[in-house]
Amino acid sequence: MKALKFDGALKLVENEPVHKREGEALVQIICAGICNTDLEIVKGYAGFHGILGHEFVGRVVESDDAALAGRRVVGEINVGCNECSLCLKGDSRHCSRRTVLGIKDRDGAFAEFISLPIRNLVQVPESLDDDTAVFTEPLAAACQILEQVDINSSSSVAVIGDGKLAQMIIRVVAQTGCSPTVIGKHEHKLELARINGVRCFQVTKPADDVSSLIDDLEGQGLVDKPDIVIEASGSPTGLPLALGLVRPKGIIVLKSTHHAETALALAQVVVNEVAIVGSRCGRLSSAIDLLANGKIDISPLISARFRLEEGLMAFKKAAQSDSMKVLLQIGQ
Amino acid sequence: MKALKFDGALKLVENEPVHKREGEALVQIICAGICNTDLEIVKGYAGFHGILGHEFVGRVVESDDAALAGRRVVGEINVGCNECSLCLKGDSRHCSRRTVLGIKDRDGAFAEFISLPIRNLVQVPESLDDDTAVFTEPLAAACQILEQVDINSSSSVAVIGDGKLAQMIIRVVAQTGCSPTVIGKHEHKLELARINGVRCFQVTKPADDVSSLIDDLEGQGLVDKPDIVIEASGSPTGLPLALGLVRPKGIIVLKSTHHAETALALAQVVVNEVAIVGSRCGRLSSAIDLLANGKIDISPLISARFRLEEGLMAFKKAAQSDSMKVLLQIGQ
Repeated sequence: MKALKFDGALKLVENEPVHKREGEALVQIICAGICNTDLEIVKGYAGFHGILGHEFVGRVVESDDAALAGRRVVGEINVGCNECSLCLKGDSRHCSRRTVLGIKDRDGAFAEFISLPIRNLVQVPESLDDDTAVFTEPLAAACQILEQVDINSSSSVAVIGDGKLAQMIIRVVAQTGCSPTVIGKHEHKLELARINGVRCFQVTKPADDVSSLIDDLEGQGLVDKPDIVIEASGSPTGLPLALGLVRPKGIIVLKSTHHAETALALAQVVVNEVAIVGSRCGRLSSAIDLLANGKIDISPLISARFRLEEGLMAFKKAAQSDSMKVLLQIGQ
Repeated sequence: MKALKFDGALKLVENEPVHKREGEALVQIICAGICNTDLEIVKGYAGFHGILGHEFVGRVVESDDAALAGRRVVGEINVGCNECSLCLKGDSRHCSRRTVLGIKDRDGAFAEFISLPIRNLVQVPESLDDDTAVFTEPLAAACQILEQVDINSSSSVAVIGDGKLAQMIIRVVAQTGCSPTVIGKHEHKLELARINGVRCFQVTKPADDVSSLIDDLEGQGLVDKPDIVIEASGSPTGLPLALGLVRPKGIIVLKSTHHAETALALAQVVVNEVAIVGSRCGRLSSAIDLLANGKIDISPLISARFRLEEGLMAFKKAAQSDSMKVLLQIGQ
């Protein structure tokens, strides 16, 4: 089968066929999305070699569970050992022996087929088209924030970033009834963020000079210090900015997973008693509910669509600073 | 009056007399303690010039509140503007216009007298001797952790550090009924930490090689990943170690206020969904209650006592790695 594989370089390969493993289902991929994590992996920082891809919608073609055969599904990307105390408590996302689809020790979804445990699959309602369903996984990552931090209509929330994940987060946070403030670099991406009264501020100063950057944002009218700052810029300079913005005793939610080290003046975390909360994957069911209710329109966030055979071109497009989500159309 | 002043260098000076300001009380200092923050200030990183000292017990010699005259007191060190929304909510510790005794824009307690707002003063019960009362402020900083994080008898807690603040924290955490694990560098300081079944592990590897350090600690028997790691080492290498030790979805409480920048691989905060909680000053009343109930014996933590005139020698002693609390005996 055809697949996009990274082995130090990204290549379109003709791979051996995937076989269904015990307890798993064979899924034919319909459509997959390129995420910033994929872009980080092809930079070589994350140490993964194999078929990339973890955002997908597909159709079950072979399964021990007959009810699943032929169903459209999305998948939880973390595959736990199913034996340790975390897995037994239902938290295989943090199992120390987990594999992760297209990220850690498990071939991913930029391929014609994958095999994934039946327990990882979630059926997609008929009402959701493929393009929308492929956003389930990244939207779930945004929904995870609401599982970790209390955000309601009276919360004062700022989101740093205007990229793919930030756009998901803005839409999820807006569902709580509060109007987040967005701080981003790109005017055309900020334009996409202007939903439901969201206020946008454009960063025009170098991000490594935090105090002059904050002066500039204050000059644009960003005066009140937010209760909660969600850092989803994908850049090492995002957290220092978040620390400068958040109110004393406020919360910073950290979503970016770049692999560069960040130099931090930790004294301000202590002196201002700030809490920094790391946040990764979320439950797919929350995201499917939001999408199925039609509460979130993701269609403006699709920048381009390529066939799997055009995968290298798709990655080039996804890496451009003006791109939002780039999809790979693989099957039907 | 005599005072220990820092103006780029630490000096014993004959300063002009302190006068009671409006709404404040004039307090004659009996005894004061040297804290790591004082040692950081004399390194010049913190930008404070003035009389040092914020841990003290004293006697009120002049006050608009007649009931206070002659009383022994300790003092909340943050003096808010008393006008902003934070101050009006009772949280002057985070007022952006606050002064801080001996730390920020307000002369401190390594002097014969200080003036401090009446609302900052807390009376000391007769049952508490001066040596014990002077520990109120640092013990309150340890108590603050319990205000921020739920720690109970079934919590699995590790404390990184074996210095003055870490020793306070170990004693406060042990009050909840759990037996913290302590990771420190100095055998004789770890000896002081061995109370109520506390397990101690000695760091013998370079602290900047976190993975071999953790291998070594595991070899010593530190196998289970703690729910909560309290970083009170005073070193920039403490947080990377805490990140390596804490369980997924665990909490790191950050107490160290060194001014060096720390290079952090933030991806592991995100991937493991760890929360990092900054923690600074606490309520004096909690600490006084603990001390007055005789639940915490601080006497083993006093390393030396000097007269104010011997202040430079006292700072030298306090800076030695084998020192615990160094007291300055100033009045009676």
